[in-house]
Amino acid sequence: MMTAKTPPKNIGVLLFPGFQLLDICGPLDVLNVLANTHTLNLSILAATLDPVTTWHAQQESQNSNFSESIVPTHTFATAPDDLEVLIIPGGFGTRRGENVEGVVEFVRGYYPKLRWCLTVCTGSAILAKSGVLDGKRATSNKKAFAWVKEQNTGVLWVPKARWVVDGNIWTSSGISAGIDLIYAWIAEVWGEETASYLADSSEYERNKDSGDDRFAERWGVV
Amino acid sequence: MMTAKTPPKNIGVLLFPGFQLLDICGPLDVLNVLANTHTLNLSILAATLDPVTTWHAQQESQNSNFSESIVPTHTFATAPDDLEVLIIPGGFGTRRGENVEGVVEFVRGYYPKLRWCLTVCTGSAILAKSGVLDGKRATSNKKAFAWVKEQNTGVLWVPKARWVVDGNIWTSSGISAGIDLIYAWIAEVWGEETASYLADSSEYERNKDSGDDRFAERWGVV
Repeated sequence: MMTAKTPPKNIGVLLFPGFQLLDICGPLDVLNVLANTHTLNLSILAATLDPVTTWHAQQESQNSNFSESIVPTHTFATAPDDLEVLIIPGGFGTRRGENVEGVVEFVRGYYPKLRWCLTVCTGSAILAKSGVLDGKRATSNKKAFAWVKEQNTGVLWVPKARWVVDGNIWTSSGISAGIDLIYAWIAEVWGEETASYLADSSEYERNKDSGDDRFAERWGVV
Repeated sequence: MMTAKTPPKNIGVLLFPGFQLLDICGPLDVLNVLANTHTLNLSILAATLDPVTTWHAQQESQNSNFSESIVPTHTFATAPDDLEVLIIPGGFGTRRGENVEGVVEFVRGYYPKLRWCLTVCTGSAILAKSGVLDGKRATSNKKAFAWVKEQNTGVLWVPKARWVVDGNIWTSSGISAGIDLIYAWIAEVWGEETASYLADSSEYERNKDSGDDRFAERWGVV
């Protein structure tokens, strides 16, 4: 019998053009290490099976050519139907409707099957657009907070928080906050001892206090 | 005229099967953001142009299938000859000779052309094998420190350090330490104001003290 404490095995992440690299690679690196000692499977979902790039138009002003591409394992149409956890990154791509249209639809349809949904940075804007966050507490990137709030005013946006938990939805603040989010979530599901050992192995100093967020003041959202 | 303080434009990273995802994505995410305001070009080098996976045999014991693949832009044979900076990740792949043989050769040949060489985690073991670190000070992953030291005893290995600078070589401690390394290096090259703004934008709490390293004690290397 599966209880709330039964750890998941099947995890999915969503990619779209212009995703923020660390939003997804911070949490995934920790889960990569966890997969050495616990059975875990990863599905990487995108609109097509083509590699998905972090590139976005912001770089054009400097003639920069600095981006990375990650290879999906499934399309939204061929996603496994047994994913228990979905992780949604943010990034400049979330601001372009054509980049995330299929993502929002997929999240809306898949969310009822999930045991947990985690977002990093402006990934919570995608979740907000899907309607899944209506009436729920959530946070997001602090530098982009004003834009995120406009995406859905029916969400109870929390300005000062490293991360926020409401039911089975865990939303984190910007970019690096996703790493603290994943350790907190692992502590909840696999236990604090596992989370601490992983963090020490990765030589990472966790912020373990979800309310400790100096970036809210830094970016003027409180 | 190019001085030591002239910022670089052309950065390369090396990938090999079984690289540690955060070793490379932590630094690259910061540089991705820097590329929005400064001209930067990235080359991703590997043995072939096939996507390079983080997967390693460690996962087999748990029947896990949890990895990511990044797409290279060049092979070692077709690498641009104007790279100014090379970033070398670590990971379980560094322990398998067949995974990194071409990497070690490439580093040995290319290093004289570089203005800076940065390593994260056991990436310093690759640099040590290449001979480039002979007689130089360097650090590495603390949990793997004993193994790393065995790769080249002619290196002046520093057990307690978040990162170490010797000439144009910057080596960091394990996994997450690469993020502190890249911010420290950016502060050196582009200035502290730029580094601080980037860190605040990424909502990252830097460790700015290269000697502050509690993981040396945690993993018993001092």
